[in-house]
Amino acid sequence: MTQKSPTPLQRIAPQSGTGFRLNKGDVLVVIDPMGEQVSDLMAFAADALEDGRPTEWLSSGRTFDYNETIYLTTGHQLYSNRSRVMFTLLRDDVGRHDFLLTPCSTETFEILYPPGTADGHPSCFGNLVKAFEPFGIRPDQIPTTLNIFMNVLVDEKGQVNIGPPISQAGQRLELRAEMDLIVGLTACSAEGSNNGTFKPIDFQIIPAGE
Amino acid sequence: MTQKSPTPLQRIAPQSGTGFRLNKGDVLVVIDPMGEQVSDLMAFAADALEDGRPTEWLSSGRTFDYNETIYLTTGHQLYSNRSRVMFTLLRDDVGRHDFLLTPCSTETFEILYPPGTADGHPSCFGNLVKAFEPFGIRPDQIPTTLNIFMNVLVDEKGQVNIGPPISQAGQRLELRAEMDLIVGLTACSAEGSNNGTFKPIDFQIIPAGE
Repeated sequence: MTQKSPTPLQRIAPQSGTGFRLNKGDVLVVIDPMGEQVSDLMAFAADALEDGRPTEWLSSGRTFDYNETIYLTTGHQLYSNRSRVMFTLLRDDVGRHDFLLTPCSTETFEILYPPGTADGHPSCFGNLVKAFEPFGIRPDQIPTTLNIFMNVLVDEKGQVNIGPPISQAGQRLELRAEMDLIVGLTACSAEGSNNGTFKPIDFQIIPAGE
Repeated sequence: MTQKSPTPLQRIAPQSGTGFRLNKGDVLVVIDPMGEQVSDLMAFAADALEDGRPTEWLSSGRTFDYNETIYLTTGHQLYSNRSRVMFTLLRDDVGRHDFLLTPCSTETFEILYPPGTADGHPSCFGNLVKAFEPFGIRPDQIPTTLNIFMNVLVDEKGQVNIGPPISQAGQRLELRAEMDLIVGLTACSAEGSNNGTFKPIDFQIIPAGE
């Protein structure tokens, strides 16, 4: 099976998100075009429906368990809650992503940020809700996201520390879809995760070959 | 508000589970009666329904984010996916619990254990499915559980290491319900998490006062 030519680059504007389908074998290329920008990803199996709605989802817990690590990089496989492989990580220019923390939401800004931050603030959670709504996926179904390029370190006492992303302009993560998927992807909206600025995220798809 | 007398001790038989309701203010006491035994806990909000089914769930990701640690103990609060407080940890005799990993399932034994282990093996996931079924909660809704007494350490490289529980006979974790809840609780079925043996778990409820 040979890969086809990639689709044109698509740009996710700062503090926004998008939803799309991947076919089994497609490679999703997520690029940080300017550096230090996080992109939250969630995926649902396209073929697992209950009452017509997708119900099988990308699981941080299954993925940590089967890879025996919390830091995912090239060669690791990402699992669904049903323990099926959803993605294989093919290329990782950065080597630092997070799968511990939930997408930023209005409540994130209320609880963790200075007073007044939350009001009207865009969020990855809100953007994923919008991205998944056309596919029949409900807000309560959105779990912990794979936070691409997010720099979260856990120290020996278990403390979670969020630093500026170490991604540089043009660096990428490539994920091969191992089943047909519905994907939500954002350009993260949280100041604290992106070194204080909001930048776009680029992506393209290398379709599976014949 | 004064607490009432606790309910009688209830025993969860080895490799099994149970489901029950908690009212806001009730204190759930989870006891390891013999030592070195894990108990997986999941909870759903009793008042958040879609199509008559509970849909708001205890979230490892929100809990890590708001507490800024992966190791939860006395004084920490456990959050739902909607960022509401579900539990406050009142007393922790052990100081080591896990909230990274999913409940053991048939696939856990297939992927991580020697060949032949999975066939007919009880699992926390299967036991939680049975515990939640009467409440209308579906298998795909069961996410990463709070694995009480489970001894999971993350080293500086992010590697996840499962050791024997450090809990001793009679030690307990006390969790106060901060909303009306539906709870599933197990005596864990996985050899690798319980130092090779399967033991019961005891629990009781201290009802909220008037």
